[in-house]
Amino acid sequence: MARIEKLVIVGVGLIGGSFALALKGAGAVGRVVGVGRGARNIRRALDLNIIDAAGALDKATFGNADLVLLAVPVGQMRAVMRSIAPLLGPKTVVTDAGSTKEDVIDLARRELKGALSRFVPGHPIAGTEKSGAEAALAGLYRGRRVVLTPLRETKPGAIALVRAAWERCGASVFELQPREHDAVLATVSHLPHVLAYALVDQVARAKNAKQLFSYAAGGFRDFTRIASSHPEMWRDICLANRKALLAELGRYGGRLERVRRMLERGDARALDALFSGARDARNRWLKYTQ
Amino acid sequence: MARIEKLVIVGVGLIGGSFALALKGAGAVGRVVGVGRGARNIRRALDLNIIDAAGALDKATFGNADLVLLAVPVGQMRAVMRSIAPLLGPKTVVTDAGSTKEDVIDLARRELKGALSRFVPGHPIAGTEKSGAEAALAGLYRGRRVVLTPLRETKPGAIALVRAAWERCGASVFELQPREHDAVLATVSHLPHVLAYALVDQVARAKNAKQLFSYAAGGFRDFTRIASSHPEMWRDICLANRKALLAELGRYGGRLERVRRMLERGDARALDALFSGARDARNRWLKYTQ
Repeated sequence: MARIEKLVIVGVGLIGGSFALALKGAGAVGRVVGVGRGARNIRRALDLNIIDAAGALDKATFGNADLVLLAVPVGQMRAVMRSIAPLLGPKTVVTDAGSTKEDVIDLARRELKGALSRFVPGHPIAGTEKSGAEAALAGLYRGRRVVLTPLRETKPGAIALVRAAWERCGASVFELQPREHDAVLATVSHLPHVLAYALVDQVARAKNAKQLFSYAAGGFRDFTRIASSHPEMWRDICLANRKALLAELGRYGGRLERVRRMLERGDARALDALFSGARDARNRWLKYTQ
Repeated sequence: MARIEKLVIVGVGLIGGSFALALKGAGAVGRVVGVGRGARNIRRALDLNIIDAAGALDKATFGNADLVLLAVPVGQMRAVMRSIAPLLGPKTVVTDAGSTKEDVIDLARRELKGALSRFVPGHPIAGTEKSGAEAALAGLYRGRRVVLTPLRETKPGAIALVRAAWERCGASVFELQPREHDAVLATVSHLPHVLAYALVDQVARAKNAKQLFSYAAGGFRDFTRIASSHPEMWRDICLANRKALLAELGRYGGRLERVRRMLERGDARALDALFSGARDARNRWLKYTQ
């Protein structure tokens, strides 16, 4: 891959910061410039050598960038795209790390204008419940999947550049249709987040919340880990992908209704089949992914 | 505490085995005898020095025991109690590690006869998704809570012995009413297990299950960890506590319905409030428990 002489990260949090760290670690990048709305976070990113300089929404920052990663919450994506569109150099490739793709593509079509053919929609399937530059990890993407959902218009060279960058981070890159991506992620990521938030909400609103929490143990802790995720980011994801998410929520309601009926009629055999089947499927998955 | 000269563990799995290892480690027990239906598991427990001898459902095993821990799935509890009732010595204290208490107490009232006043219903709130003697850990109970739900009839000396034993394992012991215990655990443990099993079931039954699993990442893994738990044990727990669990499932359905409406009307503010509130509650809990 052509070395990325200048990388601009818009949103130097867990995702953007980890991308910078990984590429620096791989010697795949020259200079990293960070742009963000939180001055303290940008200072922290400088201190931690995640970025080499703080940039701004101006020509000096974006005009000669080889690659720009948009790693802001989906809800800020439109404003960011609108701001940078007139600033991008003629060869600058833009990619994003948004957790939903159909909506980001809609925005790009409206806002990126001439740069659309150099926009490569992407989604690294990695993360933790932590956020901010402090949370960035050089190894976050190692062994993980990154999905790219290129447009008909996307130039092959732009795709190749973004693909190579993620591969240098240690990730495996796959291409999906945007709609397919959003449906898959609704099931395996967005739905569990909503379920975890809802359970914590239920416990927190109970009259005896304090007692309930005092008896919550490791199972509860792991089940709800993702409910410590960034609320603004997850609000945006849920709204951006609400059609697919509502469909999955509906399906899940049906599964729960099935369990409810098994419990009501005391159907030990059916419960056993459900639990055993789920355990076996999960254990096969674990084995396959390790 | 009076040293436990002879401890009998019925069901030498994760819970029973860890109790034995912890008491051995603390020098609080003389001889540990294991009883179980799986010959291979008992052999493994001997090899791992979790137990010193294999016992059977006979007078030689139970007649001179100081303490018997019943650590079998709730569904086997009745048969075990019925078998051991005539074998227990006049001073043998019996406790259990069942995840539900009202049903175990009902069984004890019916089956333990003269030994009822030496029965101390208990529940160590600890575990992992693993099972069997192999999974036993000397430190499993360190810093964890154990709930005892003594009966009116329970002799203070029996309670004191069981309390002291759990404390020697490093646990903190609390007393609750059986019904209160079951309601609390339905919310913070049994419900999340059902939710996790149901999600894995949903993914596994999808036409594109393989694709879905291939994009599942760390959030999914932790959310569903408890869906790798012992299906038979969890079937028994869910059935034993189905009244409280059905009530919690109903409440959870209400929370999900609320989220569904927020999504449908695109209510960013309400979603943000729900997610932020849940995150803050969880983070306060984590801080408090550490």
